[in-house]
Amino acid sequence: MSPHPDRLLRLIHALRCLPGVGPRSAQRTAYHLLQHDRAGALVLAQTLTDALEGVQHCQQCNNFTENPLCELCASDQRDGRLLCVLETPADLLMMEQTRSYQGRYFVLMGRLSPLDGMGPQDIHLDKLVRRACDGMTQEVILATNFTAEGEATAHAITELLRPRGLILTRIARGLPVGGELEYVDSGTLAQALLERRPSA
Amino acid sequence: MSPHPDRLLRLIHALRCLPGVGPRSAQRTAYHLLQHDRAGALVLAQTLTDALEGVQHCQQCNNFTENPLCELCASDQRDGRLLCVLETPADLLMMEQTRSYQGRYFVLMGRLSPLDGMGPQDIHLDKLVRRACDGMTQEVILATNFTAEGEATAHAITELLRPRGLILTRIARGLPVGGELEYVDSGTLAQALLERRPSA
Repeated sequence: MSPHPDRLLRLIHALRCLPGVGPRSAQRTAYHLLQHDRAGALVLAQTLTDALEGVQHCQQCNNFTENPLCELCASDQRDGRLLCVLETPADLLMMEQTRSYQGRYFVLMGRLSPLDGMGPQDIHLDKLVRRACDGMTQEVILATNFTAEGEATAHAITELLRPRGLILTRIARGLPVGGELEYVDSGTLAQALLERRPSA
Repeated sequence: MSPHPDRLLRLIHALRCLPGVGPRSAQRTAYHLLQHDRAGALVLAQTLTDALEGVQHCQQCNNFTENPLCELCASDQRDGRLLCVLETPADLLMMEQTRSYQGRYFVLMGRLSPLDGMGPQDIHLDKLVRRACDGMTQEVILATNFTAEGEATAHAITELLRPRGLILTRIARGLPVGGELEYVDSGTLAQALLERRPSA
């Protein structure tokens, strides 16, 4: 005799597919939804089903899209000579918000991370090579994160694309805009010194 | 032109109904589900719909159930003279795991918390009064948490039930089993001293 009805047990178990949700918080979340937010939970169930049915990967840039080509790839307003490689769709949002890039994108949907079982095929490197070698692309801008995994990913892509006659660049490291030397970490400052440029 | 398709935006928005999920983690969760765990997400959507349709509150104890009466209330193996009042179904699970209580339960599904807008009607105190005054119940054991809100809740219930001729008890505070004086917090130790009992 369990004090929890079956459907509640199944919901608690299913909630564990959410990242960072363990047994306790799955239980708390289930109580919360059933007790305090049934309307929100219903919308969640519907939008989840909807997204699973309708969201796929763009054939060209690998980003999420509802159509074979995403809006950015379908647009004729972007410069096809530049291809910016990013880890996630969130990074793409940040790039677009800068309003300072008009080229194309490729979204890896991850990063090389052997410990998490993320190898070259998991971040779609073959698809990236096909995309970069379309005859139009001249420069590939590596904009993966400056973490160990992001750096390893940038390195692997460089090795892969170097023989293809493409210009390969990496976004700059350095002090943030408005940054003060006193408050920046020493690794960033050392890198900013190493990558110093002619003063304008 | 948004880099996120509509269905993805709607999913990200809907995920915010989960407790503790803000805009960033909603985005990360949506990416994770669509990229790495579509099977889990599908099960989640289904179990969520299922639970919303099938899980209700027990007419007697207010706990979650799929039937008008939950299994514990429908059982004839429990002692109807004892009624244990708890804050959440998780607390009920813990009580059952002790295997040392054979009475009935009432689950408040919350605690008095004016700051969170939780008043007497939100924790079903009228339903509790009806339950406690069924003519069978002799003792009401208050097993709300020893937090400020839990204590206030226990106090309010005591005030409410005192005129009804019921025995009202509160679970004991004190050192945990295996606890050492050196490592226990001083509030608990002070309470253990205050609530000392004849040594057996």
